[in-house]
Amino acid sequence: MTDILQTERTTVRRLAKRGAYDRDTIHRILDEALICHVGFVVDGAPVVIPTIHTRVGDTLYFHGSAASRMLRTLRNGVDACVTVTLLDGLVLARSAFHHSMNYRSAVIIGKAREVLEVEEKLRVFDALVEHVAPGRSKDARPPNDREVRQTLVLALPIEEASAKIRTGGPIDDDEDYAMKIWAGVLPLRLVPQSPLPDERMSAGVEIPRYVVEYRRG
Amino acid sequence: MTDILQTERTTVRRLAKRGAYDRDTIHRILDEALICHVGFVVDGAPVVIPTIHTRVGDTLYFHGSAASRMLRTLRNGVDACVTVTLLDGLVLARSAFHHSMNYRSAVIIGKAREVLEVEEKLRVFDALVEHVAPGRSKDARPPNDREVRQTLVLALPIEEASAKIRTGGPIDDDEDYAMKIWAGVLPLRLVPQSPLPDERMSAGVEIPRYVVEYRRG
Repeated sequence: MTDILQTERTTVRRLAKRGAYDRDTIHRILDEALICHVGFVVDGAPVVIPTIHTRVGDTLYFHGSAASRMLRTLRNGVDACVTVTLLDGLVLARSAFHHSMNYRSAVIIGKAREVLEVEEKLRVFDALVEHVAPGRSKDARPPNDREVRQTLVLALPIEEASAKIRTGGPIDDDEDYAMKIWAGVLPLRLVPQSPLPDERMSAGVEIPRYVVEYRRG
Repeated sequence: MTDILQTERTTVRRLAKRGAYDRDTIHRILDEALICHVGFVVDGAPVVIPTIHTRVGDTLYFHGSAASRMLRTLRNGVDACVTVTLLDGLVLARSAFHHSMNYRSAVIIGKAREVLEVEEKLRVFDALVEHVAPGRSKDARPPNDREVRQTLVLALPIEEASAKIRTGGPIDDDEDYAMKIWAGVLPLRLVPQSPLPDERMSAGVEIPRYVVEYRRG
């Protein structure tokens, strides 16, 4: 299997030097992002739905209720486009025109298949919990048979994809650099706040380290 | 104009009680989100691209180079689906199955028009800068004629839309509450880090208050 996921359809055309196509870069973006946006077509019109995903090897998984329109549409093997975006900062240039953002995004194109095997489903459930909160899957009560049956899991091969990345400071027009305007980057991070324990928690349960020390990226 | 934006196509079907359709709720989500994901159809297949947006009244605007495939496709008045998602926290339940996230998302469906009038374009450029960093538009050098011409601006009426919102703690199965497992919410926020001034800044430029005190939501 190749490690370069560029195809005609995934080639970044606007600001092409921001494009990246290697598997490692794309995997890292998928792994850091908590959610993805899944695009599909219904009656000729686009639909974009946010959902949790996880990656296992070269496969991207997402899941939900068997009643979900998104999952019922995609399990028929129609075209899907999954996009994840990480915001890294605001880029404040001297000119309004050159304002920008620092970001890392990835786009995966392909057709999903439904995961039918229980073993694979269980691996995906573990991976989903680990994706959101690494360390959590060994604490949480695992899915029972009914929960496994009720949950639809889809697998999308990560074979045709691209990343697009902007880093660094503002790039202004030469004649604007002398202007007396503050310019620079305001970095942004998704930061955990104080945990809110459930009111119905059993007495004497300690807060796990993966909650106290949670960080993303 | 109605203040309820629910239609057959925007009705939330999964977990319907999380759906909201009033204009105020949808506007607030659009205004807090720094980026949106724009879905459209190319040769029958879905494409989902992240971009900056802004709202002026009942219209959602996005912009970019006149060379952008997304903008060139959408200016032809084809169907678009714009989705924004704000992550508010991780919901850690006792069972893996009931893990969730707190979030606020909005979906707008419609056909965009290209903004041709220069006056409207200039208002949108101001609004875009203000959307990202309120207060910034009075400092930044405004767009010149060339920049206005080079930039394609699209307008999408916010008429057919929905929001979907989850708040609160985990909801476990009755028999799981007695388990000795930590459960609760880990709130997440997009938080600014220390500003990074541009190396080529003119001497004596003070850092603006809207950068030092930046916050989202």
